[in-house]
Amino acid sequence: MASNGVDEIKLVEGPAGYVLEDVPHLSDYILDLPTYPNPLQSNAAYSVVRQYFVDEDDTVQEKIVVHKDSPRGTHFRRAGPRQKVYFKPSDVRACIVTCGGLCPGLNTVIREIVCGLHFMYGVTEVIGVDCGFCGFYSKNTVALTPKTVSDIHKRGGTILGTSRGGHDTSKIVDNIQDREINQVYIIGGDGTQKGASAIYKEIRRRGLKVAVAGIPKTIDNDIPVIDKSFGFDTAVEEAQRAINAAHVEATSVENGIGMVKLMGRYSGFIAMYATLASRDVDCCLIPESPFYLEGKGGLYEFIAKRLRENGHMVIVIAEGAGQDLVAESIDQQDASGNKLLKDVGLWMSLKIKEHFAKQSVMDITLKYIDPTYMIRAIPANASDNVYSTLLAQSAVHGAMAGYTGFVSGLVNGRHTYIPFNRITERQNKVVITDRMWARMLSSTNQPSFMNPPKGTKGFTDQ
Amino acid sequence: MASNGVDEIKLVEGPAGYVLEDVPHLSDYILDLPTYPNPLQSNAAYSVVRQYFVDEDDTVQEKIVVHKDSPRGTHFRRAGPRQKVYFKPSDVRACIVTCGGLCPGLNTVIREIVCGLHFMYGVTEVIGVDCGFCGFYSKNTVALTPKTVSDIHKRGGTILGTSRGGHDTSKIVDNIQDREINQVYIIGGDGTQKGASAIYKEIRRRGLKVAVAGIPKTIDNDIPVIDKSFGFDTAVEEAQRAINAAHVEATSVENGIGMVKLMGRYSGFIAMYATLASRDVDCCLIPESPFYLEGKGGLYEFIAKRLRENGHMVIVIAEGAGQDLVAESIDQQDASGNKLLKDVGLWMSLKIKEHFAKQSVMDITLKYIDPTYMIRAIPANASDNVYSTLLAQSAVHGAMAGYTGFVSGLVNGRHTYIPFNRITERQNKVVITDRMWARMLSSTNQPSFMNPPKGTKGFTDQ
Amino acid sequence: MASNGVDEIKLVEGPAGYVLEDVPHLSDYILDLPTYPNPLQSNAAYSVVRQYFVDEDDTVQEKIVVHKDSPRGTHFRRAGPRQKVYFKPSDVRACIVTCGGLCPGLNTVIREIVCGLHFMYGVTEVIGVDCGFCGFYSKNTVALTPKTVSDIHKRGGTILGTSRGGHDTSKIVDNIQDREINQVYIIGGDGTQKGASAIYKEIRRRGLKVAVAGIPKTIDNDIPVIDKSFGFDTAVEEAQRAINAAHVEATSVENGIGMVKLMGRYSGFIAMYATLASRDVDCCLIPESPFYLEGKGGLYEFIAKRLRENGHMVIVIAEGAGQDLVAESIDQQDASGNKLLKDVGLWMSLKIKEHFAKQSVMDITLKYIDPTYMIRAIPANASDNVYSTLLAQSAVHGAMAGYTGFVSGLVNGRHTYIPFNRITERQNKVVITDRMWARMLSSTNQPSFMNPPKGTKGFTDQ
Amino acid sequence: MASNGVDEIKLVEGPAGYVLEDVPHLSDYILDLPTYPNPLQSNAAYSVVRQYFVDEDDTVQEKIVVHKDSPRGTHFRRAGPRQKVYFKPSDVRACIVTCGGLCPGLNTVIREIVCGLHFMYGVTEVIGVDCGFCGFYSKNTVALTPKTVSDIHKRGGTILGTSRGGHDTSKIVDNIQDREINQVYIIGGDGTQKGASAIYKEIRRRGLKVAVAGIPKTIDNDIPVIDKSFGFDTAVEEAQRAINAAHVEATSVENGIGMVKLMGRYSGFIAMYATLASRDVDCCLIPESPFYLEGKGGLYEFIAKRLRENGHMVIVIAEGAGQDLVAESIDQQDASGNKLLKDVGLWMSLKIKEHFAKQSVMDITLKYIDPTYMIRAIPANASDNVYSTLLAQSAVHGAMAGYTGFVSGLVNGRHTYIPFNRITERQNKVVITDRMWARMLSSTNQPSFMNPPKGTKGFTDQ
Repeated sequence: MASNGVDEIKLVEGPAGYVLEDVPHLSDYILDLPTYPNPLQSNAAYSVVRQYFVDEDDTVQEKIVVHKDSPRGTHFRRAGPRQKVYFKPSDVRACIVTCGGLCPGLNTVIREIVCGLHFMYGVTEVIGVDCGFCGFYSKNTVALTPKTVSDIHKRGGTILGTSRGGHDTSKIVDNIQDREINQVYIIGGDGTQKGASAIYKEIRRRGLKVAVAGIPKTIDNDIPVIDKSFGFDTAVEEAQRAINAAHVEATSVENGIGMVKLMGRYSGFIAMYATLASRDVDCCLIPESPFYLEGKGGLYEFIAKRLRENGHMVIVIAEGAGQDLVAESIDQQDASGNKLLKDVGLWMSLKIKEHFAKQSVMDITLKYIDPTYMIRAIPANASDNVYSTLLAQSAVHGAMAGYTGFVSGLVNGRHTYIPFNRITERQNKVVITDRMWARMLSSTNQPSFMNPPKGTKGFTDQ
Repeated sequence: MASNGVDEIKLVEGPAGYVLEDVPHLSDYILDLPTYPNPLQSNAAYSVVRQYFVDEDDTVQEKIVVHKDSPRGTHFRRAGPRQKVYFKPSDVRACIVTCGGLCPGLNTVIREIVCGLHFMYGVTEVIGVDCGFCGFYSKNTVALTPKTVSDIHKRGGTILGTSRGGHDTSKIVDNIQDREINQVYIIGGDGTQKGASAIYKEIRRRGLKVAVAGIPKTIDNDIPVIDKSFGFDTAVEEAQRAINAAHVEATSVENGIGMVKLMGRYSGFIAMYATLASRDVDCCLIPESPFYLEGKGGLYEFIAKRLRENGHMVIVIAEGAGQDLVAESIDQQDASGNKLLKDVGLWMSLKIKEHFAKQSVMDITLKYIDPTYMIRAIPANASDNVYSTLLAQSAVHGAMAGYTGFVSGLVNGRHTYIPFNRITERQNKVVITDRMWARMLSSTNQPSFMNPPKGTKGFTDQ
Repeated sequence: MASNGVDEIKLVEGPAGYVLEDVPHLSDYILDLPTYPNPLQSNAAYSVVRQYFVDEDDTVQEKIVVHKDSPRGTHFRRAGPRQKVYFKPSDVRACIVTCGGLCPGLNTVIREIVCGLHFMYGVTEVIGVDCGFCGFYSKNTVALTPKTVSDIHKRGGTILGTSRGGHDTSKIVDNIQDREINQVYIIGGDGTQKGASAIYKEIRRRGLKVAVAGIPKTIDNDIPVIDKSFGFDTAVEEAQRAINAAHVEATSVENGIGMVKLMGRYSGFIAMYATLASRDVDCCLIPESPFYLEGKGGLYEFIAKRLRENGHMVIVIAEGAGQDLVAESIDQQDASGNKLLKDVGLWMSLKIKEHFAKQSVMDITLKYIDPTYMIRAIPANASDNVYSTLLAQSAVHGAMAGYTGFVSGLVNGRHTYIPFNRITERQNKVVITDRMWARMLSSTNQPSFMNPPKGTKGFTDQ
Repeated sequence: MASNGVDEIKLVEGPAGYVLEDVPHLSDYILDLPTYPNPLQSNAAYSVVRQYFVDEDDTVQEKIVVHKDSPRGTHFRRAGPRQKVYFKPSDVRACIVTCGGLCPGLNTVIREIVCGLHFMYGVTEVIGVDCGFCGFYSKNTVALTPKTVSDIHKRGGTILGTSRGGHDTSKIVDNIQDREINQVYIIGGDGTQKGASAIYKEIRRRGLKVAVAGIPKTIDNDIPVIDKSFGFDTAVEEAQRAINAAHVEATSVENGIGMVKLMGRYSGFIAMYATLASRDVDCCLIPESPFYLEGKGGLYEFIAKRLRENGHMVIVIAEGAGQDLVAESIDQQDASGNKLLKDVGLWMSLKIKEHFAKQSVMDITLKYIDPTYMIRAIPANASDNVYSTLLAQSAVHGAMAGYTGFVSGLVNGRHTYIPFNRITERQNKVVITDRMWARMLSSTNQPSFMNPPKGTKGFTDQ
């Protein structure tokens, strides 16, 4: 029941404006849960650690640029092992599910949930749910052991398989009950974590002793609160290949344009960071920054200008950029080939070619590169491997300690537990009135497209 | 004039069926040309070489699998430095032009023509023609020195720029005369070498002392006679990334299909070798091997079968495969999006999705990867760097020795001079009744698509 | 004069235990300095930014895991552009020097100091000092422009050259005065920043209007306070190659040992993170964690055990590990080959081989890999490119705003200015009683080597 | 019987100086062997091939640069499937063994022997011998199936394990008999193939129906007759990383020297090709080309000269270069550190440092890189994957056809069967009076070290 506090947000206040946005705990709705000493106490590797267990009072500050007397603001509970655990290791039956698109690091997270449960806590029953949420009710599962996952972090993709949607909260929780699962690890994005939240709430409603832990996954980096999502670094790194290729193609012909589409349906982080890292990009277009094609100050004018100056240019476009322009341009037509034009990269390539062909002022050569699946499918780089490992360990420590309804996330460089609502209520976006975007504009020296001519088609003032 | 032997093929016959298909020489149409001792004679690096100069009688056998008493057959002139050269180094004024699409190794060839002429022969005047054949009559040129080309082999593309077409033989030769160029190095494919041949003939008609040397360039490996074209190895290597990604995407979902389009307009060598090297491919489609989609033994049936067996599959398709099917399917429509469907990869992706959506037997997830420009634009790997270097040196030795109207090419592992006609009169193709294709079929275990049902659309009996 | 506050530490206190460890400013010792409006105000890229200029009161908190009522503690001044600058752009004459060993990202930092000064502030006079500190008084300099540095971030090393030592404060400051330099950017490690601090103090003593800004460089990540040093990520990534190779070598023979030496003279961060990222390592030895070879619980015993269990093992050793053992073992001998044994990797390889040869219990095959120079010399990866760029921009903003005697550094994910003393007074080390090291121990399952047998040679209780 | 021609060389002569150096066949010493139709006849993949089976008369010419009337010379039997096979697939029991050092492609060869036997011939019993020859008599074996070897070509090393030596012909053949093995595939270098030859002879002496097929393995490319050995291409490619790093290190300091040691105990092919591919090398030292250190025309003089000219230099040294110098310099001493000096790279680094320290003319900084194990341990590149696959297929076709006592090898681009003696009787070496070495000298512009001062130590006139 809602009166059980299912929808409640746990806030703890303190002096000088201190607020802790806490995460739920099994003991919030189940009375008299027994606790057990943390097995890490007798673990050889951990025995040398002084104060190994996280102090119950440890919290991590969200706002870090402060003034001498500004209020202390929001904090999150610090992640890590606790003195006492709420599960006897031999009773734990955990499951792992991966949902949504591929992202470097998925297998590393899976690996470490399995290995962390096993080596840190002595948990031996971990099962993998097949191909996303729908695997809960329609599929066999696979037993996961340290041995079966030993090398999977060197492979891209997810060994569990994944899918989109297929979420039926009630059936999933039935299935969790049927299989006597008491720890559920859910790896996925925005929508998946909303699903995870619903699962947590249903479990709480039913009063089950089942911990639900999310590990937020989004190659686009569009999860709020956390410093960055796992796989993002790897994606930005791998995007350099495509940008380099576009640069070579562009510089090898007269009036050459290399266009690269990068991931980012609602946020342009990959495009922005890949542009900043590369320095070969002349124009970076992202969903957050509207632009227009024709007329003074428009994209066509800028392309013509840059080609006249340099003889070539590289354009990076996030997949969600210019969706207003695309929608307006193709919705009247329905030939089957036009489906392809929903891909803004293909659409934009065609538009630019048509524009310059029509103009007959300038012969251009445009090469379009879409490295999306080549980026998503690679294994995590070293940095993302370490990061994914620590996220998984945090999730394991949290679930063992009885926390539930949380995601593990890095906040200002510290691992924390964040309540579901904080990461699903909005998306992280590039703030185009912020310094990072200014740095990007400065590096490409592109126009801000902020002042479209009156009546310009396709410009939306977001 | 033709009576000058412009169109003549130089054949020399010998005992036991020996035939030498020789290349033209400046002395064939200019009398009393002076010769000079080869400057390599006093070069420190070369002075240790015994019998450094290629014997005038050295020829390279074309057919190498022989029977005890089979005729000796066709031979080509062996490439390499000659005792005497027909140009005084200080008189040489060479130019280099690159035409057609990008190919790994272009910059290495340019670099070595410049460095070879400079360090081996003491030639200091080398100019680069800008952006392909049309650069001859419409553009400034750039002076090339060992210093300016020193690091270019580490970059993809061509520092000279390239373009397609734009060939006006007469204007080009006028320009060659105007600039007092006497060695012309032309790097490009099939069509480009036809152009080079026309330039050579016009030069010969005018009786000019200008050597014309081609270096055949085709990432598709579709030049006949030669063992392989430069850049091909690098392309096959780089294609592995895309195939790996397709494999990861396919194996991470239920009924996942990863489709990779690779270069190969008329020949499927890259697709075939990339498939053989990878071992993750379930189906390889090339221009030389017709196939059909519907009905018994068709592609759709094979896809459904493989998905039922393995749950996933990887398809590699050469850009020129299935062009008959594409043509038939889209030529009635003209919406602008349909232009995109001329890309067989996009077309096939759409077709497969539509087929399985319509059938509602199986939900598939198809991811399409087109790594073309990411492959073309990378620098040559070590093997192609060495190979491109030696091709360039051969061309330089040949031109200095007064040969003209030839390309330099590797035949059975030996560098040779080949007359233009032999490499332009036909294209190299995968022979689908040959063992290499059988090996490929065996590795993918795909059907040969040789027996389409009667009346099947889109099947062409090639 | 010292009474000018040269050695003073600027502390600002606030409520609830707030302390700001501030950095010096030119106006601390020069009166009535004129200020100018920041040229970024009229920069197209930055004009869209709301509140672009950093508030003078912005500070960044050092301690981030807090309790409800813990004191607020140390803060650093936030980096970024200020409303007013203390240099007229046309008056600025900046110089850049790189010191110490190579580190990925050096060229990116150089590039961005040049480009940042140029494009953000309109500064055109930037010179590069040749080959480290000694370049100040013995060498010519090189003019640096956006054009000359445009592509250098794609190359490893430092285009300026580098050297160790060669520091004569007085001569350097003479030279700075002679050349009328008024901004000095010093990129280097611990020792270099001590030198930079001395230069700053001498400049202050002489009352010169010269801003001294440091960018801390250490591939080992041993600079305290800051989150991580640039190039560290790239180094950990590249180390994976060597560990992979060691793993393959070890698993391909019976009782195979692969040993990899990684950078880390005084701190084992690279070894620890590379081990955590790889998961193929059986033992990681670092300077902070003493160990011993012989007897119960010693390294030899562990090696024998692991080989018996798995048949192979991989050892990662930081270059500064076990220096006590090395010193003890070789200082009595002086044959010239023994110089090589100062390399702990070579020494340890020899020791292990000798031990097992002597024991004749087990035939082992040990392969030793030292990838040090292959790691140091690569270009920065994307993440380090962005990071290095932002560090350089912060340094430029700080110097233009009149700050001096500072380094730019990332603290809890925010760019700050840190006084020299805070980063030179101690070194950052792996804390072996901390959770990160416990994670590492847990991942390798190696002994902690904490309880050597009595009288064991070569064990130092650090 | 031994008198049956165990040691005989099979020569077939023909007109015009034609000679076939044939390989042994089981029917040479076992009478009335039954034959079976080749199962490939009914294989779907192969059924489309015209004239799939190799004609019994097909031979491959060894000498390919010919004169009009030169004798036809030596030929080898062409590899490939034969009309009839001498084993019933269900009777075949094959084993595979890998010996000697690691080489990229080993796993690909293993994979294809297993898959080729299985898919082409329907052979299901293939066992892997553990860790080299000694695995025959002291170890368990492992069953190999297409499934267990499916992905091994993506890993470096050998899944079977390897070792050196351990060869006892008689015990091995006993073991072959005991296990009822009738096809033996032996992958290894020079010494290993000598062992394979001895095994073949002993098998013949005993009159066993056991086919012995070798696949020559040498990363150094020092096997004669064949075009190149598998893994060589990959090694040259990977060596570029080390050379690049050495170049960066050298150019980042004053008088910087980067030294890279590459594989090549007796032959300098890797060093030579890596140098030619890189173009950043100033000096390449190989076993075949003696050199000396001191005095006029010596290495020290050249180093000093190059440093004065360019400020930096890169030296590539093959592991077997300068062994005479090393031997002379260290054999009087025996301190344990001196063992390390047998490594010519370490020795040479020390020598050069000592020389320039002593001279006090020039302060140099030398960085030494030994990438050996990082090169050996990587997986084969695409080109070597295809090549290794075809070598393995040839070996399988040969053994099935009853040939024995042969290696499969590429000769002038065609797959052939070569008798053991031809590849073990001598080593392939860089011919320093040949054009390839001259090209290398020309690319580095190094001295030929051909004229040492009288009485110079350490010069051997080879």
